[in-house]
Amino acid sequence: LDGGVIKIDELQAALATVVGDNGISADPFDTAPYCVDWRGLRPGKTPFVIRPASTEQLAHVMRLLSDVGMPVVPQGGNTSMVAGATPDESGTQAVISLSRMNKVRSIDPVDMTMAVEAGVVLKAVQEAAAERGCMFPLSLASEGSATIGGVLATNAGGNTTIRYGNARDLVLGLEVVLRDGRVWNGMRCLRKDNTGYALRHLFVGSEGTLGLITAATLRLWPKIKDELVIFCSVANENSALSLFRKIQDRDIGLRAFEYMSGAGVELVVRHIDGARLPLARPAQHYVLIDLASSRASAGLRDLTEVVLAEAIESGDVIDAVIAESIAQKAAMWRIREEHSESQRKAGASIKNDISVPVSSVPTFLREVPVVCRQIIPKIRPVPFGHMGDGNIHMNFLQPEDMEAAEFLSRSGEISKAVNEVVRSLGGSMSAEHGIGSLKVDILAQWHEGIELELMRGIKDALDPAGMLNPGKIFSVR
Amino acid sequence: LDGGVIKIDELQAALATVVGDNGISADPFDTAPYCVDWRGLRPGKTPFVIRPASTEQLAHVMRLLSDVGMPVVPQGGNTSMVAGATPDESGTQAVISLSRMNKVRSIDPVDMTMAVEAGVVLKAVQEAAAERGCMFPLSLASEGSATIGGVLATNAGGNTTIRYGNARDLVLGLEVVLRDGRVWNGMRCLRKDNTGYALRHLFVGSEGTLGLITAATLRLWPKIKDELVIFCSVANENSALSLFRKIQDRDIGLRAFEYMSGAGVELVVRHIDGARLPLARPAQHYVLIDLASSRASAGLRDLTEVVLAEAIESGDVIDAVIAESIAQKAAMWRIREEHSESQRKAGASIKNDISVPVSSVPTFLREVPVVCRQIIPKIRPVPFGHMGDGNIHMNFLQPEDMEAAEFLSRSGEISKAVNEVVRSLGGSMSAEHGIGSLKVDILAQWHEGIELELMRGIKDALDPAGMLNPGKIFSVR
Repeated sequence: LDGGVIKIDELQAALATVVGDNGISADPFDTAPYCVDWRGLRPGKTPFVIRPASTEQLAHVMRLLSDVGMPVVPQGGNTSMVAGATPDESGTQAVISLSRMNKVRSIDPVDMTMAVEAGVVLKAVQEAAAERGCMFPLSLASEGSATIGGVLATNAGGNTTIRYGNARDLVLGLEVVLRDGRVWNGMRCLRKDNTGYALRHLFVGSEGTLGLITAATLRLWPKIKDELVIFCSVANENSALSLFRKIQDRDIGLRAFEYMSGAGVELVVRHIDGARLPLARPAQHYVLIDLASSRASAGLRDLTEVVLAEAIESGDVIDAVIAESIAQKAAMWRIREEHSESQRKAGASIKNDISVPVSSVPTFLREVPVVCRQIIPKIRPVPFGHMGDGNIHMNFLQPEDMEAAEFLSRSGEISKAVNEVVRSLGGSMSAEHGIGSLKVDILAQWHEGIELELMRGIKDALDPAGMLNPGKIFSVR
Repeated sequence: LDGGVIKIDELQAALATVVGDNGISADPFDTAPYCVDWRGLRPGKTPFVIRPASTEQLAHVMRLLSDVGMPVVPQGGNTSMVAGATPDESGTQAVISLSRMNKVRSIDPVDMTMAVEAGVVLKAVQEAAAERGCMFPLSLASEGSATIGGVLATNAGGNTTIRYGNARDLVLGLEVVLRDGRVWNGMRCLRKDNTGYALRHLFVGSEGTLGLITAATLRLWPKIKDELVIFCSVANENSALSLFRKIQDRDIGLRAFEYMSGAGVELVVRHIDGARLPLARPAQHYVLIDLASSRASAGLRDLTEVVLAEAIESGDVIDAVIAESIAQKAAMWRIREEHSESQRKAGASIKNDISVPVSSVPTFLREVPVVCRQIIPKIRPVPFGHMGDGNIHMNFLQPEDMEAAEFLSRSGEISKAVNEVVRSLGGSMSAEHGIGSLKVDILAQWHEGIELELMRGIKDALDPAGMLNPGKIFSVR
C-alpha cells in the first residue's frame, strides 16, 4: 500500500478514529455480504467496509484513502444487476457503505421537494413523501432494499417512467463527495437554474465513478387520488403498440403500460401460488394498463371504456377486464411482477435488459425469438416489461430437454444475438441496469471512439488516479 | 495568427473551399449583425462569419480553425439575453452561424420523436410537429428567431416548463461537433438508456463552450385538443401561491401559471393599443392560468369552476374570468406577453432573470421592492412571470422624475440587492438566460470553489486550448 509507507492496520485505526469502531470492519464475516453482488456473479474481496455516519465523516475518510491511494467502491442497497457496487477480487478496494446516512433531511409540500441522504431506502422515501400528502413516483422491484443514492448513481428506471421519467428526472440537487474529500454542495431545489454545466446530470448515472452521492433534493408529485388497472389480451405485437398510442394520445393518466407474452403469463399461473389469469381465455399477448390521477373521481373508467370499445371494435384488443377492487388491482399487477420468480421456478434463465425505439418494439418482439431459435432451437423466449418506454426484459428460459448449465454456458451467444437485433434497431444494450462490471466490454464495443473518449476525458478530469469504483463502466487502465 | 505562419486571407480561402463562397464572409457590412448581441450591450468584432451547410462542412471548418488556433463563437438566432453568442472586441474570434443547417431530418409520430438540425427556428420545430399531429411544447417570446441549437445550448425555459420541463427535458439525443472537428453522434431516440455518462446533458446548457450542437432528437407530445385560459385578481402574493398549489394538486392540465403585478398590468393597459383589463376592477396582484389537455372535451371548465369557487370563498381570489373564445384567450395572454414592450414604452428598465424555490416566491415579491426602494426611493418594481417555476422576471422601471441614463447607471446596485434576496432564499441568479458574457463575474462569485473547479475541469478536458466560445461562462484565462 503506497510503497508500504502506511500499514493496513494503521490505516484502519486512522479510519476508525473518524467513523468510530462500529463504522469500520475488516472481519471477513462482516464484510462478506458487501463483497458479493446481488446476482452472485462476481464475488470479490475487500480489506474493510467503512460505514460513515455523515458527509463530514465520509469527506475525512476520502482524504485518508486518497492520501494512501486506496480505491473505493460505494455501495447502497447492493441490488445492482450488473455487479456495479461490489469490489473486485484483488482485495485492494475499500467498500464504502452509505447505509448509516439514512436521514430524511426535510420535506416541503409547497415546493414539492424533499432532501434525503443517500442511504435512505427507496420505499422509505416513498413513505416519507406520502406522510406529507405528496408522492415520490419512482418504483422498482428492489425498492425495499435499493437506496436513493444507488438509485441516482445508476439512474434507475422502473414501471412509471412513461409518466414521471427516470431517476435523473426526479432530482433537483445533489451533494457529492469527491475523490479527495472535497464536498460539492449542489443541494438546490430550483425548477429553473441556468448557471453553468449540469453537474447533477453528470453524477446521476455515473455509477460512483465520478464522486459519491451523499444526499439529494428530490421532486415530489401530488398524491394519487384515483386509479384504474386494466388487463387485456391483444391480437399481436402491433396491437399492443397501437393500444399504447391510443391511450397516450388521450391524456387519461397513463402511469404504466406493461407487455407480457402468453408464455410468461402461463409460467406465472403455473408456478405462483394463487395467481390466475383474469381473462376467460389465454392468448399469445397481454398488456397491463395502469392509469392514475391526483384528481379525485377523475373519470378514468369512462374514458377507458371508450378506448377499449374502439380497440375491441378494431380487433386490437381481444378481451379486457378492469380491476373492480384493490385486491383485483394487486392480483393483476402480481401477474406482471411474478414473471422473474416464476421463471426462476421453471428453470435457468438468460436475461437481457434492453431498449429500442417504442415504434420498434413489435419488430424486436418478432425478430429476437427467430434469431435465438437458430442458436438453440427449443429455447423459450419470455419477453415482458415496459413497452411504453421501449424497454423489454428479453428473458429466455432453458429448453425443457437441456441441462441448466449447458444452457447458461451459451448465454453469451444468445445475448449477442439479442444485442445485434437491438443495435440494428438503434437501441440500447442497457436500458435500466447500467454498465457496472458486467457490461464494460460491450460498452467499449458499442461506444468505441469518440463517445468513450469523451467519457474517459471526464473521468480523468474528476478522478485522475482512478480511485472511484475502478473497473465499473470502464476497464481499469 | 499562429505566429504568422498562415495569413488570414489564406485561411479564409481554405475555409471557402469547404463551405463555398456564399458560406463565408469577411465583409464588415455582412458580419456586423452577427457581432452585436440582441440587447446591444456588448458589440464585438469578427474576422469572418462562417455558415456551414452540413455537419461534415462544420467538422472540416473546425479542423482548419483548430490547426491555426482560431477560437469560434457559435450562433443560432442571436437572441441571447446575456451576450452569449457574439464575439468579443478582439476581432480574433470567428463566428459560426448554424443558420444554413435548418432541415427537419425526420418525425416519427409513433415514437413521438423528431430529429432536427441546429439551425431550425423554434417556431418551425413547433409547426413541423403539429403537421404530423404532434406537439413540441417549448414556447418562448423569441421563438420566431431562436434556433433549436441555441435553445438547447442555453437550456431555454419559457412558459410551459411546469408541465413539460426545460429544454434539456425535451431532448433524447444530440449530434455535436467537437473543437477539433470530431463528430459525436449521440442521435438516440430512446426513453431509457443507461450506458455511461449523460453526455447530452453536459452539452445542453453549456452555451457552446464544450462543443457545437449540430442536431438533436426531440421528444414530442400528443396534440392539445382542449384548453382553457383564466385571468384572476388575487388578494396577495400568498393567495397566488395558494391558488397555484390547489390547481397543481388536482391534475387538471396546468400548462402555465403566470404572475403579474398591478403596476405591470396597468402599464400594459396604458401603453399597448387595444389591451384592456378583462376584470371589472383593477387589483394589486393578478395571475393568468393556462390549462390544456390532449383529451377532447377534458372538462377543464367544470373542474376550474370548482377550484375558483373554493378560492373565492377562501378570499384568495377576488375576481376571475374564463376566456370564452380564442380571441379572449389571446387577449389575456397578450396582457402577459406585452409586459416587456409596455415597460420599454414607459421608460428605461433594469431586468433580472432569477428563480427562487416556489414556496419563497411571495417572500421574494414582498422583500425585493423594500430593499430596492432603499437604494432608489421612487423606483417602480414590475415583477411578472413564471410563478409555478419560481422564476420571476424582476424588472424595475425608472422613477418618473429620474433620467434614464442616471437610472441605468445604478443597475449594478439594484441587481446586487435583488440577488442578495435571491441568494438568501436559495435561488438562482440566472433562471432561464444562462451566463453568456454578462454574468461571468457573478457566476465566479456565486459558485466559487468546488463547483467552478469541477466546471473548469470539464472545460479543460473537452476544450483544453479554449477554442470554444471563449469568455462565455468562464473568464478567459
